[in-house]
Amino acid sequence: MKKVGVAILGLGVVGSGTYNMLTEHRQFYMDTQGVDVTVENVLELNRQKALALGVPESKIAANIAEICSNPDVDIVIEVMGGVEPAKTFVLSALNAGKSVVTSNKELFCKHSHELEKAAKKNSCGLFYEATCVGGVPVIRTLLDNLQGNRILSIMGIINGTTNYILTKMTDDGASYEKVLKEAQKLGYAEADPTADVEGFDAAYKLSILSSLAFHTKIPFSRIYREGITHITPDDIQYGKQLGYVLKLLAIGKNTEDGIEVRVHPTYIRSSHPLASVKDSYNAVYVTGDYVEDVMLYGRGAGARPTASAIVGDVLYCATHPTFAYSTFPNTEEADPSAKFIDNFKSAYYLRLNAHDKAGVLAKVSSIFSRHNISLAQMIQEDGGDGTCVPLVFITHRTKEKSIAKAVEDINSTADIAEVVSVIRVVS
Amino acid sequence: MKKVGVAILGLGVVGSGTYNMLTEHRQFYMDTQGVDVTVENVLELNRQKALALGVPESKIAANIAEICSNPDVDIVIEVMGGVEPAKTFVLSALNAGKSVVTSNKELFCKHSHELEKAAKKNSCGLFYEATCVGGVPVIRTLLDNLQGNRILSIMGIINGTTNYILTKMTDDGASYEKVLKEAQKLGYAEADPTADVEGFDAAYKLSILSSLAFHTKIPFSRIYREGITHITPDDIQYGKQLGYVLKLLAIGKNTEDGIEVRVHPTYIRSSHPLASVKDSYNAVYVTGDYVEDVMLYGRGAGARPTASAIVGDVLYCATHPTFAYSTFPNTEEADPSAKFIDNFKSAYYLRLNAHDKAGVLAKVSSIFSRHNISLAQMIQEDGGDGTCVPLVFITHRTKEKSIAKAVEDINSTADIAEVVSVIRVVS
Repeated sequence: MKKVGVAILGLGVVGSGTYNMLTEHRQFYMDTQGVDVTVENVLELNRQKALALGVPESKIAANIAEICSNPDVDIVIEVMGGVEPAKTFVLSALNAGKSVVTSNKELFCKHSHELEKAAKKNSCGLFYEATCVGGVPVIRTLLDNLQGNRILSIMGIINGTTNYILTKMTDDGASYEKVLKEAQKLGYAEADPTADVEGFDAAYKLSILSSLAFHTKIPFSRIYREGITHITPDDIQYGKQLGYVLKLLAIGKNTEDGIEVRVHPTYIRSSHPLASVKDSYNAVYVTGDYVEDVMLYGRGAGARPTASAIVGDVLYCATHPTFAYSTFPNTEEADPSAKFIDNFKSAYYLRLNAHDKAGVLAKVSSIFSRHNISLAQMIQEDGGDGTCVPLVFITHRTKEKSIAKAVEDINSTADIAEVVSVIRVVS
Repeated sequence: MKKVGVAILGLGVVGSGTYNMLTEHRQFYMDTQGVDVTVENVLELNRQKALALGVPESKIAANIAEICSNPDVDIVIEVMGGVEPAKTFVLSALNAGKSVVTSNKELFCKHSHELEKAAKKNSCGLFYEATCVGGVPVIRTLLDNLQGNRILSIMGIINGTTNYILTKMTDDGASYEKVLKEAQKLGYAEADPTADVEGFDAAYKLSILSSLAFHTKIPFSRIYREGITHITPDDIQYGKQLGYVLKLLAIGKNTEDGIEVRVHPTYIRSSHPLASVKDSYNAVYVTGDYVEDVMLYGRGAGARPTASAIVGDVLYCATHPTFAYSTFPNTEEADPSAKFIDNFKSAYYLRLNAHDKAGVLAKVSSIFSRHNISLAQMIQEDGGDGTCVPLVFITHRTKEKSIAKAVEDINSTADIAEVVSVIRVVS
C-alpha cells in the first residue's frame, strides 16, 4: 500500500481537528483510498498541547528545517494563519520538494503567485480548498466542475461571524454591540473582531474566489470593503418590512463593462436562496453562462469542517500521481487589460431622519430626480415627537456616484433631512 | 498548444447543448485551460439536425466504428441515454483507447462495473459527473472533496419534474393530474412521465451517489421506490398546516445498523434548507462526520446546465495527464458484508377518513399504542356531512413495519376509519 507522510504546522483549532481526522480515519483511508496516511511531524511551540492531543513526543519537530529534511514527510499542512512565518515555512517546504496544503487565506490571497511559482519549480502540489469557506467545496468546484463556464457572478455569505451577528440582530432585534458580546462569549467572534466585522476575512476569500472565477488576479487592494459595525436594528427591521434580509455579501461580477468586487452589508430579497443562510452557515452562489445558478452551502469555519477540506486536499494529493497546476492567475497584480468598475450600479436603501413638516418629501424627491435616481419603495413613518421622522427609500438600480452626490445634496440642504444609512440592495 | 478532439454520441437536448458550449467557448478554453478542444465527430441518425446545429457534413460519422478508428478523437461524449446501444458504443470507445464522458444515469447505474473495468484495462478516463443532478457538482464533491469523511447521509431532491409538479401543487393547490398536464405542455415532463413520477430516475441517481458515498455498490434493485402519483392537494395542505413541505426525496443513510436507500414522497420541516428548493431546481444535502452539513443546489437538468457538467469533465480529462480511477465500488452487486435495512425507522404522516362518532379517536389511539407508535401531532377536522371526517397524525420515529401493521389493524377494525394516506416524514 502507498504510504504518505504528512506534517502539520500549527495545532490550533483547525490543526487539532486535522490531526484528529487523519489519525481516527487512518484505516478508513487505507480501505477506501488505498493509501496509508500518517502524521510524521507536527510543529507546535506549545508542546503540552501537542502531547495532550496524543502526538508522540518523537513526532514534535523542533523547527521547520527538521520537517523539510524528514524524508518520511511528503505533504506539509500549513494551518498557522497570518503571513509570517507561514510564508517562509511554506516556501521552505516547497523548496524541499514537499507538497503543501494550506488553509491560510491571507497568505494565499497576498502571495499566491510566489507560492505557485515555487510549487511549479519543485514539481510539488499546492492545494488551498480550505482557504475559502471551510467545508464547502467551492475551490474545486470552480477549478474542476464549472471551468467550462464564463462565470458571470459570485455572491457569497463567506464569513460565519458576521452572519451569526446579523442573524441574531434580525431574529432578536438586538443591537450590534450586544450581539457581538454574546458571539465573543460563545467563541463565534474573536476578542479583536476587526478581521471579521470589518470584512477583511471575506475580502481575502473574495480575492481568491474571484481570481479563479474571472481568470485574472483580483488583488485584495481592488476590493471595495465595508463592515457591519454601523448596522442598526432599525435598518434590519425596515428592510424586513420591505421584503429584504440584511447580509454581509461578498460580490464579484464580470460584466461587459468590467469587473466589480466588493464586500459590504447588502439587502437581498427574502425569497433568494442566500436569504435563508442563517447563523454561522455560509454559502456561495455562482452564476455561469451555461450552468446557470449553483449554490454551495455549509459550515464555513470550525475545526471539523475545515479539517474536512484539508484532508480532502491531502487525499487528493496522495492519490493523484501528477499534479495539474491550477489556472490561478500567475501574477501578483491584476492583468493590465482587466477593467475594474468602482462606479458600479446597484439598487440602494436609504434611511433619512427627516424634518416633520410639509414639503420635505418633495424636496428630497427632487434631489433624487436631479441625479436620475428613481424610487422603487418608500416607508414614511408617522411623526413621533413632531420634529423628525424616519423616511426610508429603496431606489431602482443607479450608479454608486449618483447616490453619493444625492446624499451630499440632501445633507447640505438646510432643514429637510439627514441621511442616516445607505445600504446596497441586490434584487 | 495541446489539441484534444472529442466526438459526441447523440445530438438530443444535452448533446446539442454540449456541442454549442464546446464550439462557442473554444478560444476561451485555449486562453484559460491551455487546451484546444475541437468536436471531431458527431453520431446522429438525424443528419438534418446535425447540419442545422452547424456541424460540418464531414464530421457526421456513419457509425461508431468510424469514431473509434478516428485518431483525432481522444474523448467520446455519450449523451444518448438508455442502456443499448449506448453500452456497446461506450465499450467500443474505451476498447479503442478513447476516454469517455457520459451523462447516462441508467447505463452507469446498471453497468458501472463493466465500464470501469474496460476503462482501466485500456488506461482510459471514465467520467460521469453529468449522470447526477445536471450542473450541480455532486460527483466530484463526493470523490475529491468529502472523501475524507464517513458520509452519514445523503438526502436529495434530484428529479426536476417531480419537484416542479409538487411545487405547483403546493403553491396553487392543484391536483396531480392537472399539474402533470401543464408540466407536459411546458416540456418539464415527458409524454410518458413514468421514469420521473414513479421515482426511477431518482433511484438511478441515488444508486450512483450512495455507492460513492458509502463505498459499496448500492444496486438499483436494493432501493425502495415510491412515486408521487398518489399525492393529493389535501395531503400537501395538511402537511403545510403542521409545518412541513412535501418533496420527492432520495435518501441514503449509513448507520450503525446498516444501509437504508429509498426514494419516496417525504415531508420535511419548512425550515430545512431542502424545503426551499422549488420548481425544477435540485439539491443534494450531504452529512459527513467531519464536514457536518453541506448542500449543493442548482439546475438538475436541461441542455445548458448538463452541458456544463459534461464540458467540466471533458476539460478535466483534457488537462490532467493521468487519470486517477474513482473509488467506485467495482462490483455489480452489493458487498456481501453490506447490511441493508428494509424495516427502517422514520416518522410518519397518516391521514384517515374517520367515522364521525364518539370513541373513534380512542380506538385508533389504542391501535397505535399496541404497536408502540407514539403520536407527535394531530389534526381533527370538524365533521362535514356527519359521516366521515379527516383525521391527520404525525407520529414520532417508529419502524416501517409497525406502521404497516397499525394501518392494517385500523383498516380491518369495523366502523372506525380508513387510512387514506401514509407518507414518511424527515424531522
